[in-house]
Amino acid sequence: MTAERTTVAVFGAAGYTGALTARLLHRHPHFRLEAVTARADAGRRLDDLYPHHRVPLVLEELELERHASVDAAVVAYPHGAAAELVAELRARDVRVVDLSADFRLRDLDVYAEWYRPHPAPELIDAAVYGLPELHREQIVDAGLVANPGCYPTATLLALAPLARRGVIADVVVDAKSGVSGAGRAATDATHFVSVDENVNAYGVPRHRHTPEIEQELAALGSPVTITFTPHLLPLDQGELVSCYVTLGDPGSNGGRDPGSAVADIKRVYLEAYADEPFVELTDAPPGVRDVRDTNICRLSVHTDARTGRVIVFAVIDNLWKGAASQAVQSLNLMFGRPEGEGIT
Amino acid sequence: MTAERTTVAVFGAAGYTGALTARLLHRHPHFRLEAVTARADAGRRLDDLYPHHRVPLVLEELELERHASVDAAVVAYPHGAAAELVAELRARDVRVVDLSADFRLRDLDVYAEWYRPHPAPELIDAAVYGLPELHREQIVDAGLVANPGCYPTATLLALAPLARRGVIADVVVDAKSGVSGAGRAATDATHFVSVDENVNAYGVPRHRHTPEIEQELAALGSPVTITFTPHLLPLDQGELVSCYVTLGDPGSNGGRDPGSAVADIKRVYLEAYADEPFVELTDAPPGVRDVRDTNICRLSVHTDARTGRVIVFAVIDNLWKGAASQAVQSLNLMFGRPEGEGIT
Amino acid sequence: MTAERTTVAVFGAAGYTGALTARLLHRHPHFRLEAVTARADAGRRLDDLYPHHRVPLVLEELELERHASVDAAVVAYPHGAAAELVAELRARDVRVVDLSADFRLRDLDVYAEWYRPHPAPELIDAAVYGLPELHREQIVDAGLVANPGCYPTATLLALAPLARRGVIADVVVDAKSGVSGAGRAATDATHFVSVDENVNAYGVPRHRHTPEIEQELAALGSPVTITFTPHLLPLDQGELVSCYVTLGDPGSNGGRDPGSAVADIKRVYLEAYADEPFVELTDAPPGVRDVRDTNICRLSVHTDARTGRVIVFAVIDNLWKGAASQAVQSLNLMFGRPEGEGIT
Amino acid sequence: MTAERTTVAVFGAAGYTGALTARLLHRHPHFRLEAVTARADAGRRLDDLYPHHRVPLVLEELELERHASVDAAVVAYPHGAAAELVAELRARDVRVVDLSADFRLRDLDVYAEWYRPHPAPELIDAAVYGLPELHREQIVDAGLVANPGCYPTATLLALAPLARRGVIADVVVDAKSGVSGAGRAATDATHFVSVDENVNAYGVPRHRHTPEIEQELAALGSPVTITFTPHLLPLDQGELVSCYVTLGDPGSNGGRDPGSAVADIKRVYLEAYADEPFVELTDAPPGVRDVRDTNICRLSVHTDARTGRVIVFAVIDNLWKGAASQAVQSLNLMFGRPEGEGIT
Repeated sequence: MTAERTTVAVFGAAGYTGALTARLLHRHPHFRLEAVTARADAGRRLDDLYPHHRVPLVLEELELERHASVDAAVVAYPHGAAAELVAELRARDVRVVDLSADFRLRDLDVYAEWYRPHPAPELIDAAVYGLPELHREQIVDAGLVANPGCYPTATLLALAPLARRGVIADVVVDAKSGVSGAGRAATDATHFVSVDENVNAYGVPRHRHTPEIEQELAALGSPVTITFTPHLLPLDQGELVSCYVTLGDPGSNGGRDPGSAVADIKRVYLEAYADEPFVELTDAPPGVRDVRDTNICRLSVHTDARTGRVIVFAVIDNLWKGAASQAVQSLNLMFGRPEGEGIT
Repeated sequence: MTAERTTVAVFGAAGYTGALTARLLHRHPHFRLEAVTARADAGRRLDDLYPHHRVPLVLEELELERHASVDAAVVAYPHGAAAELVAELRARDVRVVDLSADFRLRDLDVYAEWYRPHPAPELIDAAVYGLPELHREQIVDAGLVANPGCYPTATLLALAPLARRGVIADVVVDAKSGVSGAGRAATDATHFVSVDENVNAYGVPRHRHTPEIEQELAALGSPVTITFTPHLLPLDQGELVSCYVTLGDPGSNGGRDPGSAVADIKRVYLEAYADEPFVELTDAPPGVRDVRDTNICRLSVHTDARTGRVIVFAVIDNLWKGAASQAVQSLNLMFGRPEGEGIT
Repeated sequence: MTAERTTVAVFGAAGYTGALTARLLHRHPHFRLEAVTARADAGRRLDDLYPHHRVPLVLEELELERHASVDAAVVAYPHGAAAELVAELRARDVRVVDLSADFRLRDLDVYAEWYRPHPAPELIDAAVYGLPELHREQIVDAGLVANPGCYPTATLLALAPLARRGVIADVVVDAKSGVSGAGRAATDATHFVSVDENVNAYGVPRHRHTPEIEQELAALGSPVTITFTPHLLPLDQGELVSCYVTLGDPGSNGGRDPGSAVADIKRVYLEAYADEPFVELTDAPPGVRDVRDTNICRLSVHTDARTGRVIVFAVIDNLWKGAASQAVQSLNLMFGRPEGEGIT
Repeated sequence: MTAERTTVAVFGAAGYTGALTARLLHRHPHFRLEAVTARADAGRRLDDLYPHHRVPLVLEELELERHASVDAAVVAYPHGAAAELVAELRARDVRVVDLSADFRLRDLDVYAEWYRPHPAPELIDAAVYGLPELHREQIVDAGLVANPGCYPTATLLALAPLARRGVIADVVVDAKSGVSGAGRAATDATHFVSVDENVNAYGVPRHRHTPEIEQELAALGSPVTITFTPHLLPLDQGELVSCYVTLGDPGSNGGRDPGSAVADIKRVYLEAYADEPFVELTDAPPGVRDVRDTNICRLSVHTDARTGRVIVFAVIDNLWKGAASQAVQSLNLMFGRPEGEGIT
């Protein structure tokens, strides 16, 4: 008696995150990858477009009736374009992990402010924010999981232990990402000659991942307006967030004394992540190479006695834990599989 | 009737910054490079060690009597080792630009805390901090110029206009540097395989450039304890500092209102740098490529209406404006030459 | 009833190839990694030295009696130093895969010419050249497998189908390798600043991998003196060999007509590799990214009608198929496991 | 009494080579850069598009009557598109350096075979191949100079001393180039993620620079059909050609004996380039970093006693000596200036 395999499709598999999700599901012992779709690249083989993924499937044009007969779907469409397809899939009872931003924000006004009027507001309430380390229970039963952005993933794992205690008065997040985070589109900004031997900030002072981070910090107990600035680095995969935390009551101007609640900051983190298989704590600041091609987030926590600040560094692979493998982690939870199956 | 050329020697020319200084002086229309010295590499040609600099001189072992007969000297020795040679040169009336940290800090206790007991305290008072944009007048007459560190150069140019107005309550400086900043020594940390496709913080939470920045910010009018964290990037030359400023009275916890003193932050910067030939202001965050192989610091200033923070980005070439070309800029001032001669 | 696991040790696991071999064996479903040894790094944890490999073992000093109680060993010592340990292990009936060059050359004079007098000549005859695609049968029963060099692996897979037909009159091999091929030692040549934005040939005109390639080409039927030139590229893992073949009788000056024997060159390659799980043929010249972190060699074959030359490109990951995963491939064969177990 | 400055315009200054030419001419002590033109980018400032060039001019749409009033022009149009503009400029007696391939080939049939029917065949005879080291005399008086391709520049300088003696029987040229050689267009092939940590051959087996190299080798005395294969490397500027020469009568199958004519190969090269200011000979294989941002070609010559082959390595900066600075070198010759003015 063997368990039946769960059928799954990846919609929008020609981009970096969709293609990697397809690879992980194609090799997954439980899921059976039924179809991969694309628009401009329909008709091309996925292993022609991404030889290193070695997925011997042809990208197909979307045919909803046929493609929606799966048990589960990963949607890797651009923001705004995903909602409509997600709605169609949900109407057919397909359980969905959506890689876009469309269902991450719970407040329609906030979504409208940072994106545009929401295209499928009726689904927001049912959507679960797909960061298993924060919302494991809800993901298990979810019909729609909104996979977090790569920056929020690293930032929230870096800050959650403090946020839960309500002691973040203020935080500056200086984020650094490899170029794959900018997606597959060939532009002036992704041209090798633009990026090589270069580094610069972008999305200043309003990057769209900001409200997503603030929403989750507030939900954890630390409502705070953050400063978040991403930078583009000359490397492929990998993301580092450097978080500069002023401890104190949220909304206050903070204080220089960490206070008794976090007397031993390292212990707070050790306890918070003792049972998390995909979070590692280190003494020295981690490097993005340490987690390349893994679902792991690696953290280090430091206290600056001179300023009283707590500094937290977190690294992830933006395409894995920041997108594709985290989606599979949620799928594992949704379908009763071991959480690390196919991504360890 | 031609002006006589000023003779100069570079002591410690086998390292990255010493070698580049030698190149700039070798091609300089006014200075005449008389000698380059080294220890381990004595006897080798400089253009064998650094082909791209094309300086056809042999590195010599230090012979003080002979080498100290120059008008000017650049000392590119390690911290701690420089002071003794500088003292010898000053005793012979050679005017010196010292690239080490030995004469940057005015407070002997601070020096002792971050380095060790000072080896030549009697020279501290006469030393001038060699950031021309802040101390141009004193450099002109100086016998000993302490060339700033690369991080302080970028950070101080980024913050000076605000510091002068006394409105920096707090600042987080997240700095990113290419590998040449780590020097020529072959170590695990500078091995290509360690750096490539990687990024990590280092020197956490106490990097030695911190007190140098604080000293100069205080001198400008904003005594403040800063948070300063450098990161190592997979690129050769180039440095970016991202400065997150909370405005307010120094020593206070800051406030969310910039206040009337800096009602128009951009104008403050435009006025501050209107006559500076080596500072450029841009609207978009600058990239380090924009200033590679130049003496230029490029800045952008942004206000985050959500948090009230001012964000300043500054890029320099760590080997040029962060070391060698800034030394030549000071030499030009010291010997009555046009400030940009040989470095434009 | 389950198969008992085979115990294995990796000697010299602090270098790049030894460490990767340890990782592959640590995760291998059949082999059980008993020990990892090192000299300078003894006492350090392997997952401290190489976080991304995640092997939670401590590097031990070699204690032969204790460490030689395993069924199998991988020796990752430098050339010359390996032979003695291999002899000790063989004397204890441990089956060995040796990553060094010590047992690759069958002719003691040739070994002496390119290296030095051979330290353990009595073992040469029993050693098998560990390129499974050429010597699969012998590897199965071997007590000592000499794992090929990374350049010979790619070159021989590129040329074997032609060499077997005896039609290689002459060949120029222009090879390009990432920096990990130069090993872990921190030197001027592996400093990031030396390699970044650079490319140069090295080992001109006599690189030590040359006789190894010639020996195997001759064994296949094409005795030929080759021109082999490696180049160092600014990347981490990956190796490309570009082979320019003049067809004709070996030893002749070649001819411009491929001749009937290879009328359809592509078909020759398709047939030669039809059943090889780790060789892929492509139409376009392959890139090293296509095979990163895999045991795969990817090839393309082209005929230049203007010159009559056959051009073959082959890419491998120098640390995987060029060293560690190929060693595991041989171990799988030696112990009756599926050839791709633990490396697919 | 000072020499009047020569006016010059750069047509097509939005691409990499046009923009760099504009920079060199903008800072040139003799030439006066009157205008820079572009199509898609007309209206943008050149120092906005290329901050590091610091050319404070606005790109203009082409207005022939106005723009053709200069003394000299550099045309940096795509192949095929350049000929028409060149014809217009020549009709107005403007002296032209054309960076395209349109006037490099002297044989119209060859041009048609590798490109298309020639758009301005009447100008071919008057065009001079702009490699000063080979055609200095003719460039001085030329009205139209066809600037060589980057690969031919390096290859011809590598082979000219042998070609002049008529001793090249056969040659394989394995060329490696940085990404700037692929131009400014943002494509899948120039996306950072495609190039980073990668290397592959392209243009196999027929790259368009082949006939240009063969034409000039024949003109020098060695008519030979070459094998030429370029590779794309993960770096910005820089080009290395590795030339594998079989000595002997051209057209023969070569021989293993260099013969008396080239008994001392290194001396042949030393003599050939003794008076060339922009060619350097080294003992060790040169790296592309050695010549970055210069007009210099650096060479090393090696004899492989085992095969009798001569191996020549040559490095240039593809944007400088391979395009822009070589164009200025020709302009200097055409207008009676010191050959290295503005490019040293």
